[in-house]
Amino acid sequence: MDIVVENIYLLVIVTLISVLQNAFFALKVEKECISQNIRTPAFERVSCANRNCMDSYPTFLAVMWCAGLCLSQAPAAFAGIIYLVVRHKYFVGYMGQTCQSTPGYLFGKRILFFLVLMCIVGIFNYLLMRYYGSNYKEYVETITSASSALLLIP
Amino acid sequence: MDIVVENIYLLVIVTLISVLQNAFFALKVEKECISQNIRTPAFERVSCANRNCMDSYPTFLAVMWCAGLCLSQAPAAFAGIIYLVVRHKYFVGYMGQTCQSTPGYLFGKRILFFLVLMCIVGIFNYLLMRYYGSNYKEYVETITSASSALLLIP
Amino acid sequence: MDIVVENIYLLVIVTLISVLQNAFFALKVEKECISQNIRTPAFERVSCANRNCMDSYPTFLAVMWCAGLCLSQAPAAFAGIIYLVVRHKYFVGYMGQTCQSTPGYLFGKRILFFLVLMCIVGIFNYLLMRYYGSNYKEYVETITSASSALLLIP
Repeated sequence: MDIVVENIYLLVIVTLISVLQNAFFALKVEKECISQNIRTPAFERVSCANRNCMDSYPTFLAVMWCAGLCLSQAPAAFAGIIYLVVRHKYFVGYMGQTCQSTPGYLFGKRILFFLVLMCIVGIFNYLLMRYYGSNYKEYVETITSASSALLLIP
Repeated sequence: MDIVVENIYLLVIVTLISVLQNAFFALKVEKECISQNIRTPAFERVSCANRNCMDSYPTFLAVMWCAGLCLSQAPAAFAGIIYLVVRHKYFVGYMGQTCQSTPGYLFGKRILFFLVLMCIVGIFNYLLMRYYGSNYKEYVETITSASSALLLIP
Repeated sequence: MDIVVENIYLLVIVTLISVLQNAFFALKVEKECISQNIRTPAFERVSCANRNCMDSYPTFLAVMWCAGLCLSQAPAAFAGIIYLVVRHKYFVGYMGQTCQSTPGYLFGKRILFFLVLMCIVGIFNYLLMRYYGSNYKEYVETITSASSALLLIP
């Protein structure tokens, strides 16, 4: 069982942080709701930002865990952390007039793309190993870890 | 770690396809939003279809992964692919007037039911093996693989 | 593979129950929708209750599975069952006038907090074991199992 924990503990930590962030978002919505009348623009905005974040949350979790399990957990968890930072910026700075019309409706595309790429590379590596016996896992992991730093570029 | 990948790689592939589909749906909503005014029926429809798909997405992922882990991954991934096809049809052909009033609000019921059944069979098989020492896993897997073809019947 | 099933079968059972509950909620919404006109308060209420439940569903699943994998599955599954009971009560007794303005917008906070705590304890225990060689897992599991009974206090 501890072998399992060894391979996922970074992912679990990122998941916990994302859960705390969800709770923070939900509390913001609740607070806005109690303090003011609903149907005000402020409430609409915070509620929309929350809904957009929640809509993409399962996708994010699924991709991050797949990338972490298929390839290696450190770059996946790192990308997850950056995603959470981007999401926080998105939520705080949500200034659109209406719900989905903001440019930031889809945020963190680049990070999700990186994670999807990690999954694909991991599966290809597994299939190569299975059918040809060649194992490039170490090279791939090094390259992935290095390239995950590129996500820091704004 | 490769033992893990061996048992989940088909599930990961289906998850990746579902993520790409989610991105496609989100882009459709965004495009409809930018090209036209919101509050048009077309936007309402595409936004509702997207929301219904997103609402049932975590349920689908959870059931597919449980079925894949408890019993065997090939039929679970196959059912997952069919679910994605059904979801695509649902999204493309969404022609209801209002949000939840369409008959297709719950789509893919049969596939989800099949996946739930797979989970139950897998857990029963495990409990049987644990308490009685009898292992029907191979029979069960063969039957499941065969019966998953029944999902192709429209 | 059966070693995997051994460690997660309780979590799978709780996930299945939650999926059946989701289906029950969706059927309620659909029924309310067909039997009455939409835009009635009754429909609004049931639709809102469903949306609030669905919004917090991925968070719940993620936390429960992390807690079950990191520490031990029995208390996590027990907390999951209690969460489902609380969610059922919330859905049935949803009597708010508007969507997010009810006090019960965030339900089951205490249970989610307990599960998050389980994750943190599990990761700390793993890190302690890794760097100091001390393993308190058995003590921690006993304490967790005992303290999960505290969730029964209303």
